[in-house]
Parts: sequence; C-alpha cells; structure tokens
Amino acid sequence: MKVKEGTPEQAAEGADSGKVDGDTTPVPSESDPGTESRQHMHCVVGGAHAFILRISSFFGLAPLRFESRSTGFTVGISNAMCIYSYILVTILVICTIFGLVAEINVGVDLSVRMSSRMSQFVGTCDVLVVVLTAGAGVYGAPKRMRNMLKFMESVASVDTSIGAQYSLVTERKLCAVLIAILLFFSVLIADDFCFYALQAKRIDRQWDIVTNYIGFYLLWYVVMILELQFAFTALSVRARFQAVNGALALTAKHISIPLEKVKDPTSLNIFAIRVAAESRRCANNVSLLVDTLPGKENAVIIRKAVSGEPKLVVPPCEAIRRLACLHGALCNVVHRIGNSYGLPLIVILISTLLHLIVTPYFLIMEIIVSAHRIHFLVLQFLWCVTHVLRMFVVVEPCHYTITEGKRTEGLVCRLMTSTPSTGMLPSRLELFSRQLMLQSVSYTPMGMCTLDRPLVASVLGAVTTYLVILIQFQRYGE
Amino acid sequence: MKVKEGTPEQAAEGADSGKVDGDTTPVPSESDPGTESRQHMHCVVGGAHAFILRISSFFGLAPLRFESRSTGFTVGISNAMCIYSYILVTILVICTIFGLVAEINVGVDLSVRMSSRMSQFVGTCDVLVVVLTAGAGVYGAPKRMRNMLKFMESVASVDTSIGAQYSLVTERKLCAVLIAILLFFSVLIADDFCFYALQAKRIDRQWDIVTNYIGFYLLWYVVMILELQFAFTALSVRARFQAVNGALALTAKHISIPLEKVKDPTSLNIFAIRVAAESRRCANNVSLLVDTLPGKENAVIIRKAVSGEPKLVVPPCEAIRRLACLHGALCNVVHRIGNSYGLPLIVILISTLLHLIVTPYFLIMEIIVSAHRIHFLVLQFLWCVTHVLRMFVVVEPCHYTITEGKRTEGLVCRLMTSTPSTGMLPSRLELFSRQLMLQSVSYTPMGMCTLDRPLVASVLGAVTTYLVILIQFQRYGE
Amino acid sequence: MKVKEGTPEQAAEGADSGKVDGDTTPVPSESDPGTESRQHMHCVVGGAHAFILRISSFFGLAPLRFESRSTGFTVGISNAMCIYSYILVTILVICTIFGLVAEINVGVDLSVRMSSRMSQFVGTCDVLVVVLTAGAGVYGAPKRMRNMLKFMESVASVDTSIGAQYSLVTERKLCAVLIAILLFFSVLIADDFCFYALQAKRIDRQWDIVTNYIGFYLLWYVVMILELQFAFTALSVRARFQAVNGALALTAKHISIPLEKVKDPTSLNIFAIRVAAESRRCANNVSLLVDTLPGKENAVIIRKAVSGEPKLVVPPCEAIRRLACLHGALCNVVHRIGNSYGLPLIVILISTLLHLIVTPYFLIMEIIVSAHRIHFLVLQFLWCVTHVLRMFVVVEPCHYTITEGKRTEGLVCRLMTSTPSTGMLPSRLELFSRQLMLQSVSYTPMGMCTLDRPLVASVLGAVTTYLVILIQFQRYGE
Amino acid sequence: MKVKEGTPEQAAEGADSGKVDGDTTPVPSESDPGTESRQHMHCVVGGAHAFILRISSFFGLAPLRFESRSTGFTVGISNAMCIYSYILVTILVICTIFGLVAEINVGVDLSVRMSSRMSQFVGTCDVLVVVLTAGAGVYGAPKRMRNMLKFMESVASVDTSIGAQYSLVTERKLCAVLIAILLFFSVLIADDFCFYALQAKRIDRQWDIVTNYIGFYLLWYVVMILELQFAFTALSVRARFQAVNGALALTAKHISIPLEKVKDPTSLNIFAIRVAAESRRCANNVSLLVDTLPGKENAVIIRKAVSGEPKLVVPPCEAIRRLACLHGALCNVVHRIGNSYGLPLIVILISTLLHLIVTPYFLIMEIIVSAHRIHFLVLQFLWCVTHVLRMFVVVEPCHYTITEGKRTEGLVCRLMTSTPSTGMLPSRLELFSRQLMLQSVSYTPMGMCTLDRPLVASVLGAVTTYLVILIQFQRYGE
Repeated sequence: MKVKEGTPEQAAEGADSGKVDGDTTPVPSESDPGTESRQHMHCVVGGAHAFILRISSFFGLAPLRFESRSTGFTVGISNAMCIYSYILVTILVICTIFGLVAEINVGVDLSVRMSSRMSQFVGTCDVLVVVLTAGAGVYGAPKRMRNMLKFMESVASVDTSIGAQYSLVTERKLCAVLIAILLFFSVLIADDFCFYALQAKRIDRQWDIVTNYIGFYLLWYVVMILELQFAFTALSVRARFQAVNGALALTAKHISIPLEKVKDPTSLNIFAIRVAAESRRCANNVSLLVDTLPGKENAVIIRKAVSGEPKLVVPPCEAIRRLACLHGALCNVVHRIGNSYGLPLIVILISTLLHLIVTPYFLIMEIIVSAHRIHFLVLQFLWCVTHVLRMFVVVEPCHYTITEGKRTEGLVCRLMTSTPSTGMLPSRLELFSRQLMLQSVSYTPMGMCTLDRPLVASVLGAVTTYLVILIQFQRYGE
Repeated sequence: MKVKEGTPEQAAEGADSGKVDGDTTPVPSESDPGTESRQHMHCVVGGAHAFILRISSFFGLAPLRFESRSTGFTVGISNAMCIYSYILVTILVICTIFGLVAEINVGVDLSVRMSSRMSQFVGTCDVLVVVLTAGAGVYGAPKRMRNMLKFMESVASVDTSIGAQYSLVTERKLCAVLIAILLFFSVLIADDFCFYALQAKRIDRQWDIVTNYIGFYLLWYVVMILELQFAFTALSVRARFQAVNGALALTAKHISIPLEKVKDPTSLNIFAIRVAAESRRCANNVSLLVDTLPGKENAVIIRKAVSGEPKLVVPPCEAIRRLACLHGALCNVVHRIGNSYGLPLIVILISTLLHLIVTPYFLIMEIIVSAHRIHFLVLQFLWCVTHVLRMFVVVEPCHYTITEGKRTEGLVCRLMTSTPSTGMLPSRLELFSRQLMLQSVSYTPMGMCTLDRPLVASVLGAVTTYLVILIQFQRYGE
Repeated sequence: MKVKEGTPEQAAEGADSGKVDGDTTPVPSESDPGTESRQHMHCVVGGAHAFILRISSFFGLAPLRFESRSTGFTVGISNAMCIYSYILVTILVICTIFGLVAEINVGVDLSVRMSSRMSQFVGTCDVLVVVLTAGAGVYGAPKRMRNMLKFMESVASVDTSIGAQYSLVTERKLCAVLIAILLFFSVLIADDFCFYALQAKRIDRQWDIVTNYIGFYLLWYVVMILELQFAFTALSVRARFQAVNGALALTAKHISIPLEKVKDPTSLNIFAIRVAAESRRCANNVSLLVDTLPGKENAVIIRKAVSGEPKLVVPPCEAIRRLACLHGALCNVVHRIGNSYGLPLIVILISTLLHLIVTPYFLIMEIIVSAHRIHFLVLQFLWCVTHVLRMFVVVEPCHYTITEGKRTEGLVCRLMTSTPSTGMLPSRLELFSRQLMLQSVSYTPMGMCTLDRPLVASVLGAVTTYLVILIQFQRYGE
Repeated sequence: MKVKEGTPEQAAEGADSGKVDGDTTPVPSESDPGTESRQHMHCVVGGAHAFILRISSFFGLAPLRFESRSTGFTVGISNAMCIYSYILVTILVICTIFGLVAEINVGVDLSVRMSSRMSQFVGTCDVLVVVLTAGAGVYGAPKRMRNMLKFMESVASVDTSIGAQYSLVTERKLCAVLIAILLFFSVLIADDFCFYALQAKRIDRQWDIVTNYIGFYLLWYVVMILELQFAFTALSVRARFQAVNGALALTAKHISIPLEKVKDPTSLNIFAIRVAAESRRCANNVSLLVDTLPGKENAVIIRKAVSGEPKLVVPPCEAIRRLACLHGALCNVVHRIGNSYGLPLIVILISTLLHLIVTPYFLIMEIIVSAHRIHFLVLQFLWCVTHVLRMFVVVEPCHYTITEGKRTEGLVCRLMTSTPSTGMLPSRLELFSRQLMLQSVSYTPMGMCTLDRPLVASVLGAVTTYLVILIQFQRYGE
C-alpha cells in the first residue's frame, strides 16, 4: 500500500502568485482511512489544538511526540506513547473490572451504589459502557492520530490557499471553554465520589469505595477528553469551511455582485486552530506531482494586500474552481473524521441516550416522592446537565459544520443567479453546484446516523415521552 | 461591522420602466442575523401587519416606534420601548415565580391547582415553560425586530418588482381572524381563572389565586401574541412567494405557453400585508451600488397596464433571471426568520407537545372515570382545542410557504419543458432549476426540525399512541 | 375565475400526424383544484371506472349524471345527484348519532357493545370516526368530481398521444377484484351484525340493535366505497404512467438503444380504465390555443402500425419532449388527486391506525385469556384482515405509481447514458432528468405524509411494538 | 413475452480491443423480474458463490443443476431440483405444524417450552414466523434463481469490461466466514435442543420433543441459509461496484488527476465471487445486437498490461461513458435483487425485531430475578447474539454497497472538479453525475424500507427503549 505522504504547502514563506516552487498540490490524496503509514508523518499544530492534543496525550488518546517550534509543536506518531497509552488504559480497565466484581461480591446490603439486584444490573451496564468507550477511544488512538496527521495536510492546504492567519483571541476563548468544561466535570466527579464515600463511611467502607471506583472515575475522564478531542477536530475543520465561504463571498464581491457582505474585514483570519504541514519532507513526491500538475495549479487564491484587506490573486473563474476543489477536499476530511471516530461516537451516543433516560427519572422521582436528600438531588441534577452537555459537545460542532455547508450552497446559488451568462464562470459554478448536490457535509459515524440537531431533537423527544409515561404511571401506582 | 442599510425601493412613485433613478438593487444583502445595526432603520408597514405589531408592542414583543403616515406607520427600533418591554416582562416573571412559590408553600391540602406532589411537579413545569417562552420572546425581541426591519426591505423590493398592490379585503379578513383567536383565548383564560377561583372560594382562598396566578395568565398572553406575530410574519413572506409564482405564471403566458392560467386577473394584488421600505435614507449607499450594478439591473418586472391587466415590462428571459434573484432573496428571508424565532419556536413546540400529551389525558380520564364535573370537562376540552390551535398557528403558515415553494418548482419545470430550446431562456431556467434544488423553502428553527405538516402528523401520532397505551392500561388497572 | 374547459382530443378519429385539425393541446391547463366550473363538463368513461363511479354514485360519493354511449358513459356533474347525496348522508349520519345516543342511554348493563364506560368511550370514538370519514367523503364529493372531470382530460390527452387501446381482460379482472372486496366486506358486516343481534337476543334487545346500528353499518359502506374510488382513480393514473414509460422504452428502441425490452408487444394497450374527453365543446378555446401553439405541437407520439406494432410517428427528440410534457401533466394530476382526497384519506389513515391497535389486542387477549367464544374470535380476526386490507387498498395504488415514477427515472438515466452526444436529444433528456429531480410522483394527502410502503412499515412497526408491550405487561398483571 | 437471453461475454478468451467478435453488449437488458424464461439459462460460477449455492441447493433454496467445469460450475435451473425443494419444504412444514399442534395439545403442565398460555402464544408465533420465512424462501426459489442467472450476465459483463481476475485468498476467507457462521448456528441449535430435551427428560417426554421440534430446527437452517445466500449475492454485486470505482480511479490517474490513489496495484483483481456468462448460446441474439451497436461499443475498458499493471484501453472520455453504463446496469441489478428477495427479507426483518425484543427481555429478567439457571442464561445470550448476527448478515452487505455508491459519487465529483473544461469529458461526467442523482444504490425489499445502518440504529433504539421501560416497570412491580 503506497501512501502519498508529501504534498505539503510552504505555508511560511508567503509565496507570490507568479512564483510556483513546488508547494502546489491544492487537494490532498484520497487515502484509505484504514491504511498504515509506512513513514512517520509530522505536522505543526498550535494554540487550542496543541493544548487539547497534549491533554489527550496524557490520557492516552493521542500517542504523539511533541517537539516545540516557534509556531507551535511538531507532532508525529510516537511508538513510546502508543505503548504508554495501551498500558495506561489496560491498567485502568483491569482496576475498574476488579472494582466492579468486588462491589458486586460485597452483596446488596453492604454496597452503597448497588443496593438492589436492579441497581447492580444498571450499575454494571454503566461501568461497562464507560470501559467500552474508553477502550474504543484509546486502542483506536494510534490509527486515529495517523488519520488526523493525514487530513491535517488538507486542512493546511486550505490555510495556505486562503491566506488565513492565526487569531490569538479566538484561540484563548476556546482554551477557556475547554478548561471550564474540564473543571466542571472534575467538580462533578469529585462531588459524586464524596457523596458515595460519605454514605459508605457510615458502614466503614469508604476505602473500598476509593479502591473500587478510582479506575471508573479515571475512565470517565478518558471518555470526556475523547469527546472534547472530537469536538475540537470538528471545530477546526469547520473553521476551514468558514474560510472557504469567506473566500467565496470575496470572489462574489470581486465580480461586483452586490449581495455579499463580508461580515468583518478580518473575518478570513479567524482560525481557531493553527495547522501547518511541514514542507521539508517529501520534496520528491512534490516534484512528482509537479509533473502531473503544471504550474497553473498554484493553490494560493487569496492573499492579504498591504492594506490588510484580503484580495483575490487569481481570476474569479479560477478562484471558483480552486474553492470547489478545496470544498471537495474538506468534505473528504469530514468523511474521514467521521470514520475515524465512528465506533467511540456511536458508543457515546448510545450511553448518553441511556443516561438521559435513567438520570432524570431518578431526579424526578426524588423530587416527587422524597425531597430530603438535597445532596443527591443536586448531584443527579449535575449529572443530567453533564449528559446533556456531553451530547452538545459532540453534536454542536457537527451542526455548525452543516450550517457552513448550507451557507456554501446559498453563496453558490447567489453567484449562479447573479453572474453574467458569458465566459467560463457559469460553467464553473454549475460544476460547483452539482458537486454540492452529490457531496454532503455531514458527520455520519459508522453510517448509523447523522450527527445534527434533529438527532438531538429525537433523543430529547424520546426521553420526554418516556419520562411522561413513567411519571404518569408512577402516579397511579402510588 | 458595516451594515448595508440602504437599497430601498421608491415604492410609492410608480417609476416608469425607462426611468431608472437609483432605486435599483433588486436583491438585498445577505447580512448576519446577529449583527447590531448602528443606525436606526425605518420601514413603512400597514394593515394587519401594523395591527399585530402594535399589539406585540403593547405586550413587549415589538419594541418599535410607530409614526403615522398616509400609507401606514413608519416603524423603527425604539430604545424606550425596549426598556418598557424588559421591565414589563421582568415584573411579570417575578410575579409568576413568587406566585408559584407561594402556591407550593401553601401545601398540598389547601391548594386548588396543586392537590398532590405530582400536580405540584406538573404545575411547576407548566409555569416554567410559559415563563421560559415569554422570556425568550421578549428578551430577544429587539434583535428580532432589527432583523425584521432588514428583511422587510427584501420583501418591499419584491413588492416593487412585481408591481403588487394592497388588498383591503384580505387585510380585514386577517385582522378578523387575529381578533377571533385572541378573543377565544381571552375567554378561555377567563374561564380557567373563574373555575379555579370558584374552587378556591370554598376554602376562602380566591384572592390568593388571583394574586398568585395573574402573572402566569398575562405571560400566557405574551406567548400567544408571540406565536401570532411569527404566523403573520410567515404569512407576509408567503404572500411574496405567491407573487413571485404569479409573475412566473405571467411570464409563461407571455411566452405563449398555454399551460398556465393566472387564477384571477387581480391575483397579483392580493397582498395581505403592506410593507414599503423608505427611500429617503441611504442614497449614498444606493449610488455606491449603482456603480456596481449598471442601469439594466432595474428591478421592475411587472407593471399594471392602463387596462388593469398586469404585464411584463422586461423580456421573459430577463424576467426569469430577476424572479430567480427574488426567489433566492425570499429563501434567505425565510432562513433568517427561522433563525430569529428559533429558540421561542422550539420552546413553544416542546411545550405544545407536553400539553397535548397531558391535557387530553385528563379530559379522557374525566369522561371515563367521572363525568359529573361538567365545567372542568369543558375547560379541559377548550384547552385541548387551544393547544391544537397553537400548533396550527405556528405550522400552517410554514406549510403554506412550503406549498408555494413546491408550486414554484412545478412552474419552473413546466416552463423548462415547454420553452423552445433556443435563446437565453433555457439556460436561465436551468439556473433557476438548479437554484431550486440547492435552496429549500422551509422554516427550521435552530436546525432542530422542519416546521411542516409531517411534524404535526408525528406529534399527533405520538400523542395518539401514548393516549391509547394510557387508556388501555387504565382499563386493566380499574 | 376563468376555467379553460376545452383542449380536448379527438380521440376517436385517429388523426394522421400531418393532419392537425384542432386536437392539439398536449398538456392540460394547470387549474386550481378549488375552482368552481361555470359550465358542466363532460367526460366519457368506460369499464371498471364506470362501474366504480356508478356504485359511488349510488352511495352519494359521485354526484354524476350518466348517459349511455357506444364507448361507455358520458358523465357530468348533476345537481339532482348532489342533492340526493347530501340528503342520503345527512339522514344516515342523523340515524347513527341517534342510535349512538340511544345505546349510551340504555346503560352499561343492557348494552351488548358497550358493556363498560371504557367500551362506551371506544365505541363512541369508533362511530364518530366513521361518521367523520363518510361526511368528509360525501360533502366533498361534488368538488372532487369536478376536479376528476378536469384531470380526466389530462389523462385522455395521454391516451390520445400514446395511441392506447382498451383492454377488456384487465377491465374484467379489476371489476372482479372490486366485487370480491365488496362481497367480503358485506359478509363481514352481516356477520358482525348477526353476532351482536344474537347477543342482544338473550336480553330481547335485538330490534334496538337493528335500529341503532343500521346507519353505522351503512356509513361503513360509504367509507369502503370511498377508499375503492380513490384506489381506482390512482390505478387509472398509474396506467398512464405505465403508458408513458412504455412510450419511453419504445423511443429507446427506436434510437437503437439495445437495453430496452418492451415487455409485451401489446403492452401499450393495457389500459385498465377507459377515459375519453369529448371533443365537441370548446372549439373556440382550441382555436385560441392553436394560435399560440402552431401545428408542430400535434400530440400524437405513438400510433399502431398496420402490423399491430406500435411505432413512433415523431422523431425521438420530439417524442422525448412530448413525453416529458405528459409526465409533468400526470405529476400534476397526481398532485391534484392527492389534494382532492386529502381530508378523507387522512381520516381513513388515522382510523385505520387506531383500529389496527385496538382490534388485534382484543383478538390476542381473546386467544390468551379465554378461547371459548369462537365466533367472536373469527369476527375479530376478520376485522383485523379488513383493516389491513383497507390500508393496502389505499396505499398499494400509490406504491405502484411511485414505482412507475422510479421506472421513468431509470429509463431516462439509461437513455442519457446511451444516446450519442450530438443533436438535440441529449439536451432534451437533460431537461427531462432535471424535471424528474424537481417533480415527485407521490400522493401526499394534505401534505401530512406520503402514501407509500414505508408508511405501512411504520404503522405495522408501531402496532407490533405496542402489542408486544401490552401482552408483556398483561402477562405480569395476571 | 420475449426474453432476451443472449448478450454474453466471452470472458475467457481475453479479446483484444481491436477485435470485436460479437461479445459486445456491455449493458444487460432490463427485463421484468417476474418473467418466466422460456429457455434454460446457464452461468458459470466458482469459489464461495458456488459453495453457498451448493449448500442452498441442498436445503432447497437453489433448485439448480451443477455441471463441473475447469473454471467452476455451470449452473442452470433444474426441474428435478425444483420438485425436490418443494417436497422437502412441504414435508418439513407439515412436520413442524403437526409438532406444534401436538405440543399445544399436550397441555400447559406437561410441555417444557409452553408452560403457560402466554408462552403457547409466543411459541406459536415463533414457529409460524420460521415456517413463513422458510416457505417464502423455498417456494420463491425457482423464480429467484432464474432472476439470479439473468443478472449474473450483467455482473459477468462488468468482469469482462474491467478485466478483473479471480482472487483465491478472498474466496477462501469468505468460505471460512460462511462455515464459521454455520458452525456457530449448528452449535446453538444443538444446545437449544439439548436444553429442552434435558428438561423434558425429567417427565420422560424427551422423544416427543425430538419428534415435535425436529422440523422446526431444520426450518431454522433453511432461514439461515437463505440469509447467507442473500448476503453472498449482495457481496458479489458490491465487489463489482468496487471494481467500477477502481476503474474510475484508474481513469482519474490516466488523465493526470493527482487526487486518486489506487489502494493496491492488484485491487482490481479482488473478486470474491467468480461469475462468467457462457458465450456459446444466443449467437443469433448477439448478431442482432451487433447490428444496432456498431463495433465501437466494445465493452473492454481495462486490461492487464504485461507488467501486471491494469491500464485503460479506451480514451478516458469513452471509459467514463462505459463505466456510467456499467454503473447503471449494476444499480439495476441491485434493484432486481431487492425485488427477488423482497418478501423473505421483510419477514426476516420483522421476525428479527420481535426476537430482539423478546430474547433480551428473558435474558435480563433471568439475570435480575433469578440467576441460578446458568445453562438457560448462556442459551438466551447465544440466541441474542444470533439474532443480532442475523440482522448484520442481512444489513452489512447492503451497507457496504451503499458505501461504494457514495464512493462513486465522491470520485465523480473529484473528476468533475479537476478535469479541464474542454473536450467531451466534462459533458460525460455531467451525465454521470446526473445519473447518480437519479439512481440510488440501495436495497429496498418490497419498497418497505432501505436496508442500511440507520435501520439497524432504529431497531436497536426501539429495542433499547422498550427494554428500559420494561425493566423500570418490573422494578416497581416487584
């Protein structure tokens, strides 16, 4: 299996539009997500993306080597980290399973979390789902990272073509959101732990709780980081769709279509996550490609003028062609991310659905039947919030991506309607429009479902109906 | 953020087709729905639209300044009204919450609406949903109105292009429907109030009921007005889709395609809601646009002949191009309305679903188990009717809009099939058809669901299944 | 509202392709389904269609005047029949309602069908649903028939263009199916009646049963006939889609595309239902149209050669254009039929869903709990079969129509792939393909749902899940 | 009804691109799936396909005559085998029904599988579903095989055009998977049998169990083989879609589009299932076709060079045209397979849904309520696994096919975006893209549902919700 590794962009040197020196391939190769790369690949990441990758790396979800650079970190698959990840998660899983078995063996009377056969069953399911998700996350991490490194080249090529720049403010905001979510989750986990430890203290089993559940709580962290990693990856791709739309709007402005208003003169620079493919390697590959792609294939579409205003450096017709190429490449990236995170995402969705059915039920029963355990009430409420939050962490970035995809459709429509019917432009736009009809911008993990807001709506609808039935029946059962 | 404010149409002066004096831009700018406009914008509204806006304004849902004109009212965002709205809704919400707390504290035995823990829970949910909807409605009102003023320019440009006229009869009918719905709702609210006051009188708590629930009942009004406001806005846009379809049919007639029959010689005049963008302001903007859009971009497509018959003032090919532009602009308006009303609509839909599950259940139980409280029976029946009505008030205008969208598709198909294959017309129609495939005419609040009849069908299906299960079980529980 | 009445086809005279004497308009006018025609329209129907219309007419569902002709019956709206229909259904509805009230008043102990408050409620719902369906059917019949007469002209124009002939065998088969369904239903109704009469005989109330339920049973007939009428109308349109597909296949054969195999040399003659528009009237209209549509618009596409083989009488390119027109017109007919039968169909679907939930439940309970009332068992089983049959009577013709629509898509694809890329043919096929993408061939009564097999699947799925839940619970309730 | 039987490909002789001797028709005829072929058709199959057909043939699901050849087996419909199938299944069905009746008559107390009226009902349903599926499978087998022989010609024509070769390794893997599934199922059936026989031994009824259930267990085998047969057929078609995609990728490479990377130099040879149409028959038909299709229609697109590398033997533009034809033909094959297996697939899906609701319920109840019957627990778990496996056996091949269909769309998009806008290529690609929009690659048995992963998701969702409700209620019922 020959993996085309090269085709990087000399992002740093700000090549002129006339100067085509090898940094050409605008569109990455379609490669099988499942292929193993023979050589280590490298990629420069910065900002929030580097931050989440470092955290992921600590939890075994990103077995990467980080080398500090001026612009960020060069990352590459590291075998040592792979081994670390596998050992870490294996130990945690074994701990958790042993803890679970110990807790079940202790019997219904002494256990604080499993005070009946039913809660033994529910508790076991809960633990197994977390183990499964974390396992799917960590054991699949090397392959996922390898894929990530590959599609980051597509993403970096978009950055080069569009002339995008790094926005420190957005970066910091994203890091803040990330830290806030993690802090909230840590507080919740700590509180949950304390609650059961306090309960167990009455029967002097608090240390058993600590030893039996420590693995479980740490695996919860792995699951959470995995979700955040997916969310950041999806947000990073979405920022490129935004950039392509910005470039489309700029093209529209350039050909005097008065309908477009670029939201902000610096909008093309809002890149939440910095990615740059390294250019040193694979010069041979590139030269090979230069043979097949003559010089006109130079990828740069937009460059900042001296005044700070972005402007087109190619004719509109050519810009449209290249933007269509970039859009196709990004669609492909979306497809591959969906494949990479397929199994963990499906497990996460199912577990969220189950949790969203069970947790509010306990909460509402606690409110209606007995309202004196205020700590338990708060805890259950926080878990409800967490599960809803988890669902949104997964779905919202996908929703934003879909929205950008729809915006592209709107912009292409508008360009089609308004361009004069002569020249190459209409035919290029027609091609783009047909491409948009055939390729959808959506995450479909394992082809099971589309991650979007209607999925949230149907999950919430199912949960609501279910709760209403339960409460209605409960009432007549009293 | 630079907001393009101008591009109005001199709707009043009935410009000749030869006289193109700056009032040109046929298609409005795509502007971010979330942008704050730096300058106050104005818009002339009349008839039913002015009526609903005035009522909305009273309930804090339209913080506008109204200036009387010969043709209607000039409306613009008013800071004073914004403050009034915020104060009004804040007071109502605080009243309601305090009332709710007071009612809960009075205990299960003394309360007439919350005679069990379960009904305390259900009642609290009910109140909170109403508070949430009204809050989302009023606090988002200024932004929503700002958006409305913007997209009204698109709407007004359609009016100018199509040569539409104001129909007093339709206007009056709409106002009558509006007043009928509000009267029905007032009677219901009053009846509900009396029922519980009477019940409370037995234990001498009737004044508590009044003070505890007055805020709740007033917030119900706010919710109702919000729904009607959305319905009227959607109907107003739908009237423009109808007009575009009418113009398409006229174009078909003009190029001797015998398939089209304009339903009514005056059909192009049936405009339920009068909107006219003011033309005085923003002359500078317009002149800017005139640079980019030369004189041939004159928007007028159809004008009334002396005989009263509407006729095309541009060649069919050009008419198709402009109608496609108008259609795209209207699709954009639909999209922005969906965004503006997103959160309130979702809350309304969820609350309607919940109410439609709970209310008929009480009604049917009352019929089967005990049929002596005839007043309660009638009240529950009226609430059922109201909730169904609320759903239809929201969904029907959207359904009509979708139907017009489908009619456009049908008309374009027909034109495509029948036009000769020479000249520019086929390529223009092809463009239009591709635009129709890419852009959908549908309201999707927050991207959660599409507001259409199948949504009603699935809601009714869920409610039916649920009721059958409950009743079937109830039967064997007796 | 001016209704274009004319544009008939001189179906009888077998005009030559060179001889264009007025029988021209290949595509009918798009007319509003809600318009009242000023003049009485006439139409010649024969065979199974005439048969079902006569039966419908007897039950008040087709207020038509029938005049015998050599080729069938000339039908036209008859005011006398309208009055008869209204009187008939009003009497039946009043009888039913009075019977229902009498039965409820007799009390739970004496009634044989309403032996508990629950069965009083279920029985009332049952009666009201039947009354509603029959009412919607009969009171809307005149408008529906007026629409039918209009779209029959479209249908007749297809017949003329394609050179279709009448197939007596298919006709007789259809009549046999119709009679079989009606006989089965009559037996069921009679059996149901006898069962309850026998039960009532024990307490000497058999005559009360007769007088109370006679109206209800007769209204059931009206509902059944209404469903069959819709099914026949849909089948009749579907036969024309088949004919268009046949003509497409013939065209493919003509231009030497070896992929098509006409199933049967006489396949173009299989017309289940004979429709012919009369040609005498509206010559003035036609001449008007002839002005706009010059002689080349002659509709005949296929004519039987002397050898009995059908052959094209126009060049393939022109044939494709005309078939696209006919296809569009048929799509329009489908849309209008969906609108005409909208309300009754929705009521029928909901009532079928409810019956399919309730009836099998009684059946299964009877099997599991007590198996000694063998007559009741058989009766419930027959009712189950009847409700499933009713659903299929409504859905299957729609499914067949959708299948024909898909076949058209397949044929056009195949023609597109195989035609040489020169000449007018590719552009005509492209137009056809775009038309197919925009216009769907499906019945969507009131826009609520699409009548197709997935609807059946979801209904059956809901019923199955529901029954499993009920039985599972029943088990633990014992 | 004239069935075009010929148009085979001389697959063996490796015809040169210049040498067009009759083996031409690249696309098979669209023939009605329901037609009876007048002559016996033959087809050469090999490898895993021959293996599954032989097993099917033994169980009456493939009434074929096998003649050994050098390259595999020539298969053709055999009347003797048809009679054998019918007799076999009739005997089994009668055995099963008699066994069921005997078991019911033995009474609730003595029976080991039907220890209550409820389990009598559930057990009867279980048996009847298996009987129905096996009956639908075997009685429809001759028609299904006749269809299979027809569409195998399409499949063989793809093989010839693409220059595909047989891969022994994949073949053996598939056979291994097949045998593994069958072994697993045999073990399960044997275990199930033993469990009940052991239980029956306590009351000395073990021989009754053997005689009563032997037919039932054998029919289970028939059902399983039927599912595997469908899965293999679908996988075989999917391998051809893969080959078409491979050829598309090769074409892209040929016209110097650097985006495509053929996964593997020998990827075009991975054909899991060998099919070759025989060329001796129907020379007359072919010559007929040669008249209409001149020599340029030679089907070979790709041929292995001496170096083992596949290369295009026609210009890219022509290659695209032919690949579009092949793709259309394969879509048609998919459609016909869906029709052939329609009824059995629907019955299988419904029975799987029911089993997936009932089996895990017993399993979970056994775990929660009483955990001492460890054998029963394991048995129920294995049945759960089997039912999930059955669903995946049916759905996964369809999912893979859909994925290949999406890959084709992606490849065509990419070609569209990257080809120069001159020459015939863009218009050919446009045709292909429109064809892809009109024709879907999906299995829809009886038009009821689409066999894909979302179907699995909705089934699993329904099962999960149902189980949660049952367990939750169970808990409060204790």
